[in-house]
Amino acid sequence: METLKVALLGAGNVGAQVARILLEDADALAGRVGARLELTGIAVRDVDAPRTVDLPRDLLSTDAEAVLSGADLVVELMGGIEPARSLIKRALAGGAAVVTGNKALLAEHGPELYAAAEEAGVQLAYEAAVAGAIPIIRPVRDNLAGDNITRVLGIVNGTTNYILDAMDTTGASFADALAEAQRLGYAEADPTADVEGLDAAAKATILASLAFHTSFDRAHVSCEGITAITAADVAAAREAGYVIKLLAICEAVPADPQAPDGDRGVAVRVHPTLLPREHALAAVRGAFNAVYIEAEYAGSLMFYGAGAGGVPTASAVLGDIVSSARRRVLGGPGVTESVGASVTPVGLEAVATSYAIGLRVADAPGVLATIARVFGDHGVSIGTLRQTTHADGAREGTSNDADLRIVTHRALDAALRRTVDAVGQLPAVHEVTSILRVEGA
Amino acid sequence: METLKVALLGAGNVGAQVARILLEDADALAGRVGARLELTGIAVRDVDAPRTVDLPRDLLSTDAEAVLSGADLVVELMGGIEPARSLIKRALAGGAAVVTGNKALLAEHGPELYAAAEEAGVQLAYEAAVAGAIPIIRPVRDNLAGDNITRVLGIVNGTTNYILDAMDTTGASFADALAEAQRLGYAEADPTADVEGLDAAAKATILASLAFHTSFDRAHVSCEGITAITAADVAAAREAGYVIKLLAICEAVPADPQAPDGDRGVAVRVHPTLLPREHALAAVRGAFNAVYIEAEYAGSLMFYGAGAGGVPTASAVLGDIVSSARRRVLGGPGVTESVGASVTPVGLEAVATSYAIGLRVADAPGVLATIARVFGDHGVSIGTLRQTTHADGAREGTSNDADLRIVTHRALDAALRRTVDAVGQLPAVHEVTSILRVEGA
Repeated sequence: METLKVALLGAGNVGAQVARILLEDADALAGRVGARLELTGIAVRDVDAPRTVDLPRDLLSTDAEAVLSGADLVVELMGGIEPARSLIKRALAGGAAVVTGNKALLAEHGPELYAAAEEAGVQLAYEAAVAGAIPIIRPVRDNLAGDNITRVLGIVNGTTNYILDAMDTTGASFADALAEAQRLGYAEADPTADVEGLDAAAKATILASLAFHTSFDRAHVSCEGITAITAADVAAAREAGYVIKLLAICEAVPADPQAPDGDRGVAVRVHPTLLPREHALAAVRGAFNAVYIEAEYAGSLMFYGAGAGGVPTASAVLGDIVSSARRRVLGGPGVTESVGASVTPVGLEAVATSYAIGLRVADAPGVLATIARVFGDHGVSIGTLRQTTHADGAREGTSNDADLRIVTHRALDAALRRTVDAVGQLPAVHEVTSILRVEGA
Repeated sequence: METLKVALLGAGNVGAQVARILLEDADALAGRVGARLELTGIAVRDVDAPRTVDLPRDLLSTDAEAVLSGADLVVELMGGIEPARSLIKRALAGGAAVVTGNKALLAEHGPELYAAAEEAGVQLAYEAAVAGAIPIIRPVRDNLAGDNITRVLGIVNGTTNYILDAMDTTGASFADALAEAQRLGYAEADPTADVEGLDAAAKATILASLAFHTSFDRAHVSCEGITAITAADVAAAREAGYVIKLLAICEAVPADPQAPDGDRGVAVRVHPTLLPREHALAAVRGAFNAVYIEAEYAGSLMFYGAGAGGVPTASAVLGDIVSSARRRVLGGPGVTESVGASVTPVGLEAVATSYAIGLRVADAPGVLATIARVFGDHGVSIGTLRQTTHADGAREGTSNDADLRIVTHRALDAALRRTVDAVGQLPAVHEVTSILRVEGA
């Protein structure tokens, strides 16, 4: 039986598990590939660093270039842009198949790497880059290749889903839920990439490129995190039958909102979103991930599972390793990306959604009518309106205030902004407490 | 741009939609494949038969062999064993890639066809054979190729899910729910293949072969349909917090139930199953399908979507057409099946599950204790027991009877059968009204 040399770059949470499984399951994997997978080296920053798994000392090296030299398959799990990008390009140019889980790298330099793989005629596989163990790259790229995807809604970041779920379940504040997530290992000491939506935005970039056969760039993705979400927002959403989720959304929309029958564009965005509690994605709890896809022929599909964690993510990496190795044994070039469609990436201004708006207003006669008139004057239609009056003195300085929660019908972002600006000018409106988008209704 | 010749065998519900989309979306598909897909012929039984879609008359022919001659890609959607089997073998031998949705054929003759494809070095793709539009073949074959699947639970037949869901929702009898399903087009005039579980068993055979890297045969699959399920079974399940679903289950178990640490076997079965209402599969309503997979590294995954219907199934066929065509443009042989593991197919006797047992018993002191003692004597432990006493004369001849619903802890089939036989001999037990397996607790 032939032997294929596998080089591993990185032995962190995921990398160490991939190494362990390659060693422990070697016989079973050989049977599936039709060749033995020999782990020839593991590039690490520090050979002596503590690891989650005991790895054979003689495989570890700080010289990444030496590790990948001569490999048939290079598995990049070091993360970050450099040196990952240069090492992957070097591996591809040398004719090695490459497996990576590096979402930030693919979101920023995907097209360059896909082109390098195509030129070299080798497989570049990256199932682990989006939604951990959940098969999503291959289903979107291959299974739905003959369909026309119209919308992708994804819960693709476990940390933020854990935090929002905790806020929804326990009524905790964002700060307390984040602290608990950090204590339990669901959030990192520096949670910025997760809670600001940057991780989800990278994954949205990758999904949009595949779903719409067009090279999207991270710069095309509008991104808002969950740090401004308050316990009051979560409670108000709950009362109105919604749950707040951080969604990555890729959607076909008219490129020009004034010409709904004209050219199609695609808007890619990440933001906290109100979802009706009966939507399939509303049931995704804790740190789990799910991707919901709407396609012209398939209808609605959902993919659900563990979106993070060393072992589940290793499952996705190993699937790519076995598939890429099998292709190597069979012969023939790897599957390439289909990016010939060139739809126009458009911004938030082209997207129509419902909005949930929170206002703190004077509890006086005529205020509701005045606010409703401003919405109407700007062409934004009100779906539901709830008013909660504060008991006198319940909050200092807020007696005689009322909380208003308005859910609009679908409107364009610009119309909504103009409406909220005008409403905010009204003397009776003391504060605009929140503006959140609503999907899935 | 290169042109690939596509021959279509069959223009029924799915085939006609595939033809329509190949013609209507020709430009978009060409961009994704890197070659134009030219539909060169459609083999039908009767050129003049009424169809759901108007197809170009000059493409239709009753001569299937002439239609497939010279094709680069052959799409078989005629169903049945012959002539589908011979035509596919002829196409493969001629070097054409083949796409099929023929579950019955693959369940009975899969290994022969996979071998023919491997020998010819061409792709044999069959995503549409299991769970309609839901990507499941490729995720199991490729994404999970480096993991160890331990269990697959699938709702893979929309007709029976529609019927069971209607029984659960409306309290209807099986006969009434079936009649309604037939009226709405969810069940065929002859519903045997669906309601007896034969369609699900064919799909289970295909999933088991992929999930466990072993050639399973339809004869390895134990199969029980839903025709014996009564409104009383559904009501009792509901009362106890369960829903009844027809599940296809592929599960790794000890090959010898007396040697739990010995060789592994795989049991494949289709039967009505009690699922706790909080299980993810319990929420799958109407004619939808879902497949729930448990794997050693990935954990639990679920895939959900439309399991049948001409247009959704066409989505899966088109995905296979584009992928196979892309491989043809790239060069290199198709992906092959991995069947090197040779786990032992085992029967129901090796499977331990919980059971829900319905008994009609005399409503007299001491009866419960006697029955409980028989269970204990046979080593089957009782989890819950509910007794419902009939009001005197409420049912003719059944006054002084009580209905007993027992849910056991996990037990082997043989132990359960012996227990139920012994219980059935008791003078106080008038009837064993139902025996159903429970999963997912």
